[in-house]
Amino acid sequence: MPDIFLKIPEPALRRLPWYLAYAQLAKRQGVKFLSSTQIAKKIGIEASLVAKDFSYVTISGKTRVGYDVDELIFALNHFLGFANQHEAFLFGVGSLGSSLLHDHGLLQYGLKILAAFDVKHELVGTQINRIPIHHVNHFMSLQKQMNVHIGVLTVPVDNAQEVADVMIAGGIRAIWNFTPFRIRVPENIVVQNTSMYAHLALIFNRLKEELETEKHEDV
Amino acid sequence: MPDIFLKIPEPALRRLPWYLAYAQLAKRQGVKFLSSTQIAKKIGIEASLVAKDFSYVTISGKTRVGYDVDELIFALNHFLGFANQHEAFLFGVGSLGSSLLHDHGLLQYGLKILAAFDVKHELVGTQINRIPIHHVNHFMSLQKQMNVHIGVLTVPVDNAQEVADVMIAGGIRAIWNFTPFRIRVPENIVVQNTSMYAHLALIFNRLKEELETEKHEDV
Repeated sequence: MPDIFLKIPEPALRRLPWYLAYAQLAKRQGVKFLSSTQIAKKIGIEASLVAKDFSYVTISGKTRVGYDVDELIFALNHFLGFANQHEAFLFGVGSLGSSLLHDHGLLQYGLKILAAFDVKHELVGTQINRIPIHHVNHFMSLQKQMNVHIGVLTVPVDNAQEVADVMIAGGIRAIWNFTPFRIRVPENIVVQNTSMYAHLALIFNRLKEELETEKHEDV
Repeated sequence: MPDIFLKIPEPALRRLPWYLAYAQLAKRQGVKFLSSTQIAKKIGIEASLVAKDFSYVTISGKTRVGYDVDELIFALNHFLGFANQHEAFLFGVGSLGSSLLHDHGLLQYGLKILAAFDVKHELVGTQINRIPIHHVNHFMSLQKQMNVHIGVLTVPVDNAQEVADVMIAGGIRAIWNFTPFRIRVPENIVVQNTSMYAHLALIFNRLKEELETEKHEDV
């Protein structure tokens, strides 16, 4: 059985994009080979951890020279799913939703948003970045034609659960939840929370601690 | 010493925004009081955990009726830092950077971006959402006037470390890192990574697993 069917632990999966980013940077700087020790040192983690994380991906290093940078980038891009196009719908074209429709980075990393949905009449029938915006009532019929698996959730908190339910009823299998609301879903539905505003709270809180500590040290 | 100086563990801090979002929803639905049991049930965690998390925030529930919803929202908003305005600079007005400048949600959650920096001549001197874009060479002099503590990092991977170093040299104390690059910073600098594209990898990977499992079950 190929390595790709080995279930990779989430912390390892979260680290792979760091290695990819670093390998891409090294390539642009003209580097041809990278060892796990070099990568580990640059990123600030243990070399054994890098080697272990790579064991989930089908790449093999050469003794003394390390990993071929091009092969490493290719393998990581494929393993992470960035090399394929994954179709998605977006729900809620407010400030954050329309920002995401504008972001070309998503496509570059493998997410192609085919259409967006909202209830605001002034938005329905328009496009952002060539992505059409439909009334949410249009979702079921469009989904029957397109059979999209990924839904991006950027509606207001009030509608988060209701819209998630509609998405799932229509056959969406993975929800990228940008709302601060904790949606409830059946077990077989993938949910990834990206709570940008919760991250803000972490920044505010830690910064305050740092500034407090400094003040105490000054005394 | 008030509770606010008790160092809250990160997992608890990460859950507070969920309670806030739910309390705001309940308020709009006309609810006046909420118990930790009700909140826990709605969010899908243990009631004792909700009560423990609330112990870090200065709010007190009343026996039988629970927490006053208005007080709860007020206390959480303040504790999380969303009620105050925190000034920030943004570095890198590419696709993601300009998306964030457009997002009104940031201001609503307490982050006020005062200015953005880039190196592209066609951007310098323009504005997005009334936020001026300066050449990055202008950062040090502007920072001397403004003494901003928070920097949003949305530059390309290649420049992530270099720009982070400049930010820190200028007195930025907390970096919100949206790049997939793992920046290295001194110990007293706060870094919050919001790796949107890494989250995409998690979605792709888990969705694939779900679809594989299903296929096997169908056989």
